[in-house]
Amino acid sequence: MVLSCCRISWVRLAVVASILALVAGPGVAAERDPLPSWNDGAAKAAIMGFVARITAEGGPDFVPPDQRIATFDNDGTLWSEQPAYVQAAFLMDRLKAMAPQHPEWRTEQPYKAALDGDHQTLAAGGLRTIDTLVMATHAGMTSDEFTAAVTSWIATARHPRFNRPYTDLVYQPMVELVAYLKEQRFKVYIVSGGGVEFMRPWTETIYGIPPEQVVGSSIKLKYELSGDSPLLRRLPEIDFIDDGPGKPVGIARAIGRRPIFAAGNSDGDLQMLQWTTLAPGPRFALLVHHTDAEREWAYDRTSAVGKLDKALDEAPGRGWLVVDMKADWKAVFPFQR
Amino acid sequence: MVLSCCRISWVRLAVVASILALVAGPGVAAERDPLPSWNDGAAKAAIMGFVARITAEGGPDFVPPDQRIATFDNDGTLWSEQPAYVQAAFLMDRLKAMAPQHPEWRTEQPYKAALDGDHQTLAAGGLRTIDTLVMATHAGMTSDEFTAAVTSWIATARHPRFNRPYTDLVYQPMVELVAYLKEQRFKVYIVSGGGVEFMRPWTETIYGIPPEQVVGSSIKLKYELSGDSPLLRRLPEIDFIDDGPGKPVGIARAIGRRPIFAAGNSDGDLQMLQWTTLAPGPRFALLVHHTDAEREWAYDRTSAVGKLDKALDEAPGRGWLVVDMKADWKAVFPFQR
Repeated sequence: MVLSCCRISWVRLAVVASILALVAGPGVAAERDPLPSWNDGAAKAAIMGFVARITAEGGPDFVPPDQRIATFDNDGTLWSEQPAYVQAAFLMDRLKAMAPQHPEWRTEQPYKAALDGDHQTLAAGGLRTIDTLVMATHAGMTSDEFTAAVTSWIATARHPRFNRPYTDLVYQPMVELVAYLKEQRFKVYIVSGGGVEFMRPWTETIYGIPPEQVVGSSIKLKYELSGDSPLLRRLPEIDFIDDGPGKPVGIARAIGRRPIFAAGNSDGDLQMLQWTTLAPGPRFALLVHHTDAEREWAYDRTSAVGKLDKALDEAPGRGWLVVDMKADWKAVFPFQR
Repeated sequence: MVLSCCRISWVRLAVVASILALVAGPGVAAERDPLPSWNDGAAKAAIMGFVARITAEGGPDFVPPDQRIATFDNDGTLWSEQPAYVQAAFLMDRLKAMAPQHPEWRTEQPYKAALDGDHQTLAAGGLRTIDTLVMATHAGMTSDEFTAAVTSWIATARHPRFNRPYTDLVYQPMVELVAYLKEQRFKVYIVSGGGVEFMRPWTETIYGIPPEQVVGSSIKLKYELSGDSPLLRRLPEIDFIDDGPGKPVGIARAIGRRPIFAAGNSDGDLQMLQWTTLAPGPRFALLVHHTDAEREWAYDRTSAVGKLDKALDEAPGRGWLVVDMKADWKAVFPFQR
């Protein structure tokens, strides 16, 4: 009798609580964990503590929503960059697909070396070789044609280690972080060394970041009117490299506001983190440290891709959070949950 | 008796209607005229008809909010560009303010000609002269210093004809149009030949367009870390000219989506209007035609500033709305209402 009475009151309480939650809206719903793939610990607490401080209306660290700009690096920060940048895989696949129309590539360098997988010859050529291969595969067509090529490639290409679409190789905890900041009225941007027109076709789908919030490297574009059809031609000439000291410049060009939150994983993000944090007011930066060879990769100071050395040295003195992927993340990829 | 009964029911009706309006929200509130400074006529009807079509959910021309991109030229489209671009007035005032620290300018060209108001010598120098004067007044300092200079200038400088701050010389009907499109969930951008860092300090205040939605011309920036203070140095080198065929390029770089609505007033906007309208789906473009010498200015095909010639010829065939300032606008400036 006592038991059945209590059961009824528990049910009633639950119903009342549900109704209250529905009526109260976001306030009560905030009890939900916005970062379920982060282990409870110092990293998660630091992020949530910062967000709580800057969103507390009337508090000393309150930041108005229009000034809540967050910038995220992409490769190695939002998705995997090993064993090579995804855009490099796209370049190689495109080179192979274009080869039949370019019989001269069978003998001409650096095309021959690239098609033969002759890494020694490619490495000896340095930046000039990369530039030649980028222009051969990324220029000449219109912007719309390039977008179509990226869209079709990203839908079919598969990651060599995980045998899954590259778009599965996003970091679940970082996707949650982007969504959490958006809920907290941040405007979240990607600021990446990758090509801006390579990223824009898929960033909205996999991260919820729209094209106009993607900042990246670019080659020059030229407007042409062909009959009554305007087009933008991709020229074989570098316009802007959005990497290292280029990141604060890219942010100034595209956004015109200084971020208060930045996330990166390599020395290519060093200046973005400095630019974000070395100014008055509440500010936050984090570095994703790749410490998990089993679920993803472990690399830092000596890696050819995504080298993290100077930024790792600066982090403690600057108060940047170093996220230990192995210790801080419950899952790395969505398919590992 | 009948009368008093009717009076009571009118009052009751009004109260009921008010409550309904409050409860129903935007739907009923739309009865309010969103463009009160536009005369009722074909121009206003064309704009509102287009917006009604593309916002009608389930209708054949519905455009989802994230694709509602609108781009507005600034000089001559959102504010006056006569007798000279506002940025040219800023340049001249800056040159005069800097002259005491540059005694060599008293004899050196083109500085001497500029300071003496010797238009003949300046005109003979052409683009190179303009470039020299721009770099002398717009480069060398940091981005933050330049922003401070613009902010202080715009707060005090006065328009020579109207003896009012330049920020009073905005077109009231266009400010209403920007606000109307924003209400209808457009993302409204400025796409101007003016300097992006010259515009960003005041566009939010006078138009409600935030810095990250301003696209413009730029000079190169360089990141420097001076001790623990990062800064962006403005270099004396053109980065990008966002004018004419540069406008679709600027849109692609900064936004990465094709606008469905564009507004301009000169041949410098021709390619932006082509890029916006010559594509499938519902699209809209307008040209502000300066026809009102009394309230503002009358100029088009032969004007040195804001020449409107080719775009005026193309307008009828392309279906672009030509707004007749004198006939279509009830007021030009806010202070004329």
